[in-house]
Amino acid sequence: MAPVTAPGEAMYALVERLYPLCRSITGDGVRATLGIVGEYLPLDVHEVPTGTQVLDWTVPQEWNIRDAYVADADGNRVVDFRASSLHVLGYSVPVDRTMPLAELRPHLHTLPEHPSWVPYRTSYYQPEWGFCLAQETLDALPDGDYAVRVDSTLADGHLTYAEHVVPGQVPDEVIVSCHVCHPSLANDNLAGIAVATHLARWLADQRPYYTYRFLFAPGTIGAITWLARNAERIDRVRHGLVLACAGDPGQLTYKKSRRGDAEIDRVLAHVLAASERPHEIREFTPYGYDERQFCSPGFDLGVGSLSRTPYAGYPEYHTSADDLGFVTPAALADTLAVCREAFGVLDRNRRYVNLSPYGEPQLGRRGLYDSLGGRSDAKEAQMAMLWVLSLSDGEHTLLDVAERAGLPFDTVAAAADALHDAGLIKA
Amino acid sequence: MAPVTAPGEAMYALVERLYPLCRSITGDGVRATLGIVGEYLPLDVHEVPTGTQVLDWTVPQEWNIRDAYVADADGNRVVDFRASSLHVLGYSVPVDRTMPLAELRPHLHTLPEHPSWVPYRTSYYQPEWGFCLAQETLDALPDGDYAVRVDSTLADGHLTYAEHVVPGQVPDEVIVSCHVCHPSLANDNLAGIAVATHLARWLADQRPYYTYRFLFAPGTIGAITWLARNAERIDRVRHGLVLACAGDPGQLTYKKSRRGDAEIDRVLAHVLAASERPHEIREFTPYGYDERQFCSPGFDLGVGSLSRTPYAGYPEYHTSADDLGFVTPAALADTLAVCREAFGVLDRNRRYVNLSPYGEPQLGRRGLYDSLGGRSDAKEAQMAMLWVLSLSDGEHTLLDVAERAGLPFDTVAAAADALHDAGLIKA
Amino acid sequence: MAPVTAPGEAMYALVERLYPLCRSITGDGVRATLGIVGEYLPLDVHEVPTGTQVLDWTVPQEWNIRDAYVADADGNRVVDFRASSLHVLGYSVPVDRTMPLAELRPHLHTLPEHPSWVPYRTSYYQPEWGFCLAQETLDALPDGDYAVRVDSTLADGHLTYAEHVVPGQVPDEVIVSCHVCHPSLANDNLAGIAVATHLARWLADQRPYYTYRFLFAPGTIGAITWLARNAERIDRVRHGLVLACAGDPGQLTYKKSRRGDAEIDRVLAHVLAASERPHEIREFTPYGYDERQFCSPGFDLGVGSLSRTPYAGYPEYHTSADDLGFVTPAALADTLAVCREAFGVLDRNRRYVNLSPYGEPQLGRRGLYDSLGGRSDAKEAQMAMLWVLSLSDGEHTLLDVAERAGLPFDTVAAAADALHDAGLIKA
Repeated sequence: MAPVTAPGEAMYALVERLYPLCRSITGDGVRATLGIVGEYLPLDVHEVPTGTQVLDWTVPQEWNIRDAYVADADGNRVVDFRASSLHVLGYSVPVDRTMPLAELRPHLHTLPEHPSWVPYRTSYYQPEWGFCLAQETLDALPDGDYAVRVDSTLADGHLTYAEHVVPGQVPDEVIVSCHVCHPSLANDNLAGIAVATHLARWLADQRPYYTYRFLFAPGTIGAITWLARNAERIDRVRHGLVLACAGDPGQLTYKKSRRGDAEIDRVLAHVLAASERPHEIREFTPYGYDERQFCSPGFDLGVGSLSRTPYAGYPEYHTSADDLGFVTPAALADTLAVCREAFGVLDRNRRYVNLSPYGEPQLGRRGLYDSLGGRSDAKEAQMAMLWVLSLSDGEHTLLDVAERAGLPFDTVAAAADALHDAGLIKA
Repeated sequence: MAPVTAPGEAMYALVERLYPLCRSITGDGVRATLGIVGEYLPLDVHEVPTGTQVLDWTVPQEWNIRDAYVADADGNRVVDFRASSLHVLGYSVPVDRTMPLAELRPHLHTLPEHPSWVPYRTSYYQPEWGFCLAQETLDALPDGDYAVRVDSTLADGHLTYAEHVVPGQVPDEVIVSCHVCHPSLANDNLAGIAVATHLARWLADQRPYYTYRFLFAPGTIGAITWLARNAERIDRVRHGLVLACAGDPGQLTYKKSRRGDAEIDRVLAHVLAASERPHEIREFTPYGYDERQFCSPGFDLGVGSLSRTPYAGYPEYHTSADDLGFVTPAALADTLAVCREAFGVLDRNRRYVNLSPYGEPQLGRRGLYDSLGGRSDAKEAQMAMLWVLSLSDGEHTLLDVAERAGLPFDTVAAAADALHDAGLIKA
Repeated sequence: MAPVTAPGEAMYALVERLYPLCRSITGDGVRATLGIVGEYLPLDVHEVPTGTQVLDWTVPQEWNIRDAYVADADGNRVVDFRASSLHVLGYSVPVDRTMPLAELRPHLHTLPEHPSWVPYRTSYYQPEWGFCLAQETLDALPDGDYAVRVDSTLADGHLTYAEHVVPGQVPDEVIVSCHVCHPSLANDNLAGIAVATHLARWLADQRPYYTYRFLFAPGTIGAITWLARNAERIDRVRHGLVLACAGDPGQLTYKKSRRGDAEIDRVLAHVLAASERPHEIREFTPYGYDERQFCSPGFDLGVGSLSRTPYAGYPEYHTSADDLGFVTPAALADTLAVCREAFGVLDRNRRYVNLSPYGEPQLGRRGLYDSLGGRSDAKEAQMAMLWVLSLSDGEHTLLDVAERAGLPFDTVAAAADALHDAGLIKA
């Protein structure tokens, strides 16, 4: 685990600012979130009207909420949206009635196995209202009448998402995507938003080869909307990474793309193994985050997903226990560090062609080889050059070379640079 | 092991009826056998004349036998065909002489390592006569003269085999083949005949997708004759299974086709593993039963072989100890059950194409997806639908989906049915 | 380990004769070496002029040396070329001066970790002079002036290499290569020269299928020169083997070609495994001996390398301890035996086509199959015939057959011969 560093603290502070907001797949909570991210990163914010057809889906009505509660006969709010945005079922339709507990009960969602935690529940596409509360709270409610109010609006409006582009030397794109639709849940996905934001800032300083496009969009419908509106751009997408659950103290987990052998898959597996961090590589499944959409068979993009403890893999997942105490600056910094390492490899991972492929070129007269013969220790840099020459047949990438040679990628990339400067290989 | 069931008892009863008959590669024993099978299943019986050219072979003369014995000076039959059809060397030419034991001895076949058992021996293509007997019997024979008689006929006639077809929805065929040429040997292959017979009856009730063709034919020359006479049909054969040694108490053994990755190979491996039965999967070898012919390189059909203890794998193999006590109703029922499971998978194993491959189709509005979001438990049926959608690219079969998803084939097939009914995939 | 045999003694005697000569990449030491080999084997000796362009390289000036020493004030030779050719830095330019030890010291090469051994060092492409000596010798030198003399010539001349061809039935070639440029080092590579020489003599008696070309050439520049001068021949090279470090008592090591699955790779792996010798199979690396040149990506020939303890794998490597006591007749004989076995397989390893691929051909009427049926023991020769028939589809080699069948290559090859003689398969 990387030490707590300045980036870790900065990302944690961003998570703290975003935590109180009530986000959903549409509405002002998303806009406020993007507004804060926009202070760190110039964003191109898109507003897509309700009713817009996006692939097989339709942009839903926009949901906004001002207040929601269940109050007892004395007017005490026993469940209160103002205490946590989790208390209201996401996309609850308005309600303003008094009813006995028995009638209210089917609208109350709890987690019996964690009686002090509040679950996160939504009903985006089925008109419904409801409250989420601790089992303990529910158990303590006496029978009797309760005032039930959800002061929300479900009306034509927009779906909001944002993009930030780090321009590269080529128009080929790498997508980094994170979902911005979850309410007060710290790891899922404010941590992902924070890592994406700081990754984008770092990349801007690197003069990268690829063009990197960061997407901040609501889950599922947001990715689908982006895909529907960017049909002509898809062919330029070479690689992608979905960031989610990026801040808990668990080990890193990389979930492969549907292809299973996409370059991003090989890069993440290599970087995680080379870093000697404990980690897990998982096969693709069509469940999880927006890799589901990017990897749907029509697109089948080389998009994987990086998490710490993954989707549904921790009891705090989708509950009030995924709070500010569940993520740490150190974990955020560690996730960011791996992203930097991975994109550092991905961005330099090229296929070269040996321009002198018949026999070895004479490296000595070009100052690339030790002049004293007979010694048995070939230096690593020299071995890297021989390996790059050997495998630069237009088929092998530098990552292939590094893995076959058992040499660090950086050493191989430096050898390729030296050979390129000497005119011995071309990209 | 499946419990002793009604099908097990019925199959065992069929084995009992067939056991006494003296079968060979031609002759009335085969006809009588097919006559009994025909009581269970309508058969199309073919008679192919002696001398017919079939691939590289020629249909041999027909062999029929009425009696055979070795009698001592007192007229006692010390070896007697009437006691067991195994006592005569298959295809023995007629003989009727008296000779001293020393002259007779080269014509006597025993099993010294199992002195009380009678071996099964034949000489189809080399004119020869002989007797098979227990080593104990031979050891007890005093020197002296013996009357030796084989009352057989080897003459122009026919080779007999039968077919039974279960019509399917498509003309593509699945072949199920068993050999009917072995005399009084219960496991090899009366058990195979009994399982094939009851499998055909069961399939007829299933309205199967494929057309299933059952072959009851003498080993080697029978399969070769069928292949020679069905050249135009071969292209329609999609899959096949040879049944042999199907009734002993040992674990099931599946021997792969020559291809090694034919669909039937994958289906049997999947079904046997999923059933959690102890079993063994063996690689193809060009020895064994009629898979040798179906898998010869010119045909190279996807035909595997299902046995319990396989070819030559038990000491009773090709001896008088392969008797009615060696097979059990439970083992027969278990073999039949696996056949049903396997053809249940094979028959439904289709490639689909996702008609909405760009992003996920909105399953919710089609009633195929839970409306309440946020919960971490995706139901198996829902996961199966997502997997079918993800892998329905025209390349993956439902079995591929089941194996990659780690879900039961039945669940995946039901998901495919639901998606097909919703118009989301097509075959 | 094979017993000490006549070939082992003969090879060891050749190593002894060659040991005292001072070889380098050019010069009279190479010529003398080839002269001695030529007594065993007719050689075609090539002389390539200094300055000739060969691929990316240029043939260097020819180096010859008559004497070299460091002498103390009393005229005692404290380092003396006449004692060992290793004492002079290979390709040392002439020098004839008196200088204090401090000035001499940078020109002295030692092995501090093995203080009694003399290292082997060269400077082919950078003008330099120097001496190699034991660390003990250096430590014992008092300060003071030393007479330093290298009586060498570096002048336009030739690079010398030799070929020996064993003609085959087809013009397709197998290259066997060994380097002849190392001075008094027994294992590296006089052992390789000795094994190659005796392998060539043995092959000449075999009437081989392939044409075998033996190269005796200086390392790197020699192979590059041969490749440059034989551009039109390269397409005929089917397989190759580089012999080096062939005489030490360590286990055999085969280093695969760059392709990793070339036929020579499969043959060596098969033969070494089948022989049950302890051995190691290594992946290709672009370092080592002249496989570096043959496997450069433009040529990418199926050339592997056979050693005992490989390149730089023993402390004696490139030191005076690689002497006549380091190699043994038994090890030389064992290496030769494996080469014979390997070329015995390679030379017979053909793809056949079954001319009767539909069903099995009737082997019995061709006398190739046991006439008595029913026995459970199929003889190995019979199984080999069935396997060859099954896999002779133009894709599988006899080695593929042997490995899939789990049968000895010789049995399979004999079966193929029998089937070929019967007109059932064709090459």
